[in-house]
Amino acid sequence: MALSVVSKILVPIDGSESSMRAANAAIELARRYNEESRPVEVIALHVIDINPKFHLFTKYGFHYSEYERKAKETAQKGTAEWFPKIKEKADHHNLRFRSEVTDSSSASVVGEIVKFAEREKVDLIVLGTRGQSEFERLLIGSVTSGVTVYAQCSVMIVK
Amino acid sequence: MALSVVSKILVPIDGSESSMRAANAAIELARRYNEESRPVEVIALHVIDINPKFHLFTKYGFHYSEYERKAKETAQKGTAEWFPKIKEKADHHNLRFRSEVTDSSSASVVGEIVKFAEREKVDLIVLGTRGQSEFERLLIGSVTSGVTVYAQCSVMIVK
Repeated sequence: MALSVVSKILVPIDGSESSMRAANAAIELARRYNEESRPVEVIALHVIDINPKFHLFTKYGFHYSEYERKAKETAQKGTAEWFPKIKEKADHHNLRFRSEVTDSSSASVVGEIVKFAEREKVDLIVLGTRGQSEFERLLIGSVTSGVTVYAQCSVMIVK
Repeated sequence: MALSVVSKILVPIDGSESSMRAANAAIELARRYNEESRPVEVIALHVIDINPKFHLFTKYGFHYSEYERKAKETAQKGTAEWFPKIKEKADHHNLRFRSEVTDSSSASVVGEIVKFAEREKVDLIVLGTRGQSEFERLLIGSVTSGVTVYAQCSVMIVK
């Protein structure tokens, strides 16, 4: 794929500064590739990081359902703040925009992003370098690294 | 950097199908970002893979200078074939185009690409997934992976 045709751009959002910068780049790319005959859609995706392995801790008094409820609540608050900011910029350039929330309980954050991109036949995934939960000392976060390796479509890493 | 301004796009070329696909994507991107007031330049870079560690083998009868001469000869033949193909496409879209050849003797292929991008203040590096010398079983080549991690500018991986 030589990127002559771009119809769908996916940008995973976790609220980090890095992911919001990626959203700006995704909108800019969509604007440049947008054509009347083939409008580009930007999809912002938030994957709630629910690790199903945590179930294992339940027997030691760790309340998984409580943890899951809190993660979803935090995600709801977050996306209510992040998504409108991106939508506003997309609207400003008359771009198609959609936001989605999913969780990583059936796979992992990387797995969810890759599966979503395949299901939606996304042409390009635009990523920041580091998510909120990554160690600052890493030059590139594990989610970004994982998506770069496993995505079947092209990937842009915005620094 | 939110990629609203793109003036220089670097595409490392080793002649692999993957790198030639990246060149097409780089030209397409340049075309989309090109503005009369800010023309975009595409730079194709070939790094001759000369491993200075091979010097160590000299004492066992390995002729390093012969190896180096052959590597440079092969590169010359290769670039004489690859670069005009890319230039033709760039010319077709009235884009600025430049080609450069360097070697990895002072660092590594990754190091050379990253240093070149910094020196030239490149905005974006466009890469294929796999070079000629990478193992086919890898989902992403070591050069692509290394550049993604160490480049200071944004990176696009074309699949």
